[in-house]
Parts: sequence; structure tokens; C-alpha cells
Amino acid sequence: MKRIAPCLLAFFTVAGLVASFAPASGYADQEAAPIFGIKIPPGYRDWKLISVAHEEGNLNDLRAILGNDVAIKAYRDGKLPFPDGTIVARLAWNHVSSEENNKVFGRAQSFVAGSATNVQFMVKDSRKYAATGGWGFAQFKDGKPADEALLKTCFPCHEPVKARDFVFTHYAP
Amino acid sequence: MKRIAPCLLAFFTVAGLVASFAPASGYADQEAAPIFGIKIPPGYRDWKLISVAHEEGNLNDLRAILGNDVAIKAYRDGKLPFPDGTIVARLAWNHVSSEENNKVFGRAQSFVAGSATNVQFMVKDSRKYAATGGWGFAQFKDGKPADEALLKTCFPCHEPVKARDFVFTHYAP
Repeated sequence: MKRIAPCLLAFFTVAGLVASFAPASGYADQEAAPIFGIKIPPGYRDWKLISVAHEEGNLNDLRAILGNDVAIKAYRDGKLPFPDGTIVARLAWNHVSSEENNKVFGRAQSFVAGSATNVQFMVKDSRKYAATGGWGFAQFKDGKPADEALLKTCFPCHEPVKARDFVFTHYAP
Repeated sequence: MKRIAPCLLAFFTVAGLVASFAPASGYADQEAAPIFGIKIPPGYRDWKLISVAHEEGNLNDLRAILGNDVAIKAYRDGKLPFPDGTIVARLAWNHVSSEENNKVFGRAQSFVAGSATNVQFMVKDSRKYAATGGWGFAQFKDGKPADEALLKTCFPCHEPVKARDFVFTHYAP
């Protein structure tokens, strides 16, 4: 069994707000992630929901997986591989107990999204990213891209799901 | 401490797909929820993300809270009360261990959205629903509305968050 690549399905930040409200032109000076040259896609916080997830362990987060229109159409059509132009965004927040909700439920059972951890993107470009299954990978924390060493761990961890075009997340009905 | 009203923040179904793909006119014969007369809002599966959550205990679910455009604008503007026309949707799926993900992480830590449980809606109409803080409540499982007894439990459980216009969910940054 492989140990987790920190990149795999992981984290998010203030970058979400930046991406939601800044115009596309506002990204001119944004730093691109290494290796794959990916910047935070403008407006991704408004994308449609693919699914949700929860990681325990060191990650201890709640996450939402969103997709641009190309991604959502591909998921709903059930067609693989994902076409060029597909972008999948993985947002994550700390998994935080909600005292407010627990009072209403009458027991400690409720967890909500705390502070954002980081945000990750998979960008499909079958020619540009031919060496990594057609996917470019990026991770940003507080708007700053993760370093090259981390991003090199992304593709090896996604290889086990080659049969689903290297994408772990299933569409939530 | 109050016991949970089953309505509170809870479940979802096949109704999601129906709502996503059927035209608005396709709801002509849809059964409305009792008391509040709410039908499943067309297209809600495409709405923007407000936040995510996780309930343990009997619910044992992962959930996404989505909002129509009126809801999202109100959240981002930080203005209360929510204006008439606001609709908040709470989708939920069983909290299921992912063997596939766990293999990659090297330990059992990964949970994903399993089958849908139910979907709930809060609809703001300050005159129509004046008796319940301006909110109408509905829950659907497999497209069928919950009964009157269940829906009567919704508002009493939301009363503790009157200061936030009876809405539990905070916007996830």
C-alpha cells in the first residue's frame, strides 16, 4: 500500500473568495503552480457540485468537489475520458464540531466546515499534460501554489484510478 | 436540550437528478410538501455551494448546502434577514467508507457520498410563512414529500438561530 501523497484529494483557503469575486483580469499577477503552470481558475467557487467527502487522520477535513461546465457535463453523460477543458476543483475546510448544532440535536454529532485549508485543481489537456495522463495538477493555500516536490506526488497517487481517467470522485446523485 | 427534529439539517434522493434534468414544466404533477406547499425547485442540483457538513449518529451522512442566486448573494453580502425568494437546499448522502481511497492513503480515513438520503428546502416568503419566521420548510425522499408531522418539527428546531434568521449554515470561505 502506498502512503498518501499530500496532494491526493486534499485542502483550501482565502483563495476561494479571491477567485469568486475578482475579475479574470485580476489574475494577471497571480503566481502559477509549478510544473503544470496552472493558475487559480476565476470563478471556481461558483461551479456546480460534483460531490462531497470527509477525510479523517492528519487531513481531518470536509471537502466539496466542484466542476466547471465541461466537467459536469462529462460526469452526467457518464463518458470517459474527460474532454480537454475539464477542470475539477477540490475545496476543503477543517472538520469542526458545531456546538450550536449539537445543542439542537441533543448530542455531539454535528460537524461543519471550519477554516479553509487549501484548494486543488485537476486540469485536462491531453497534449500539454500527456506525461501525466492528460491531467495537470495544482494546489493553492492562501492563494500561494504548492511547491514542485508536492505536485510531483499527485499523478502517482491518481494512477490507481486510471480506469476512471485518473479521477477519484464519483458524481453524487 | 431538545432532541433532534428529523427535519433539521438532514437527507436526499433521486429527486436530485429529476430536478437537474427535467424542465420546470415537468413539475406540474409533482406532489407538494404539506403545510408549506413547497415543490422541489427545478434545477436546484445546479445551485452554488454554501457549505458542507457531516452528521454522525443516526443520520450518519455527508451533506452539501446549496443556495439559489438570491441566497448566495445574501450570504456573500452578509445581510440579514434573507430576502424573500431565498431558497436554501440541503442535500445529504450516506457517509460511506471508500476502500478505493483508503488504499491510496494507506489507512482507513476516507469517506465519500454514498446513496442519497433526502433533500430539504427552506423557502423565504415573509408574508406567506409569517407564522414560522418567514420560512417554509420541505423535505423530499425519492421525490416524495415528508408528512405533516415531520414538517411541524422544522421551525421549532430552527428557533435557536433566530439571530441568523433561523438558518444554521454559515457560508464556507
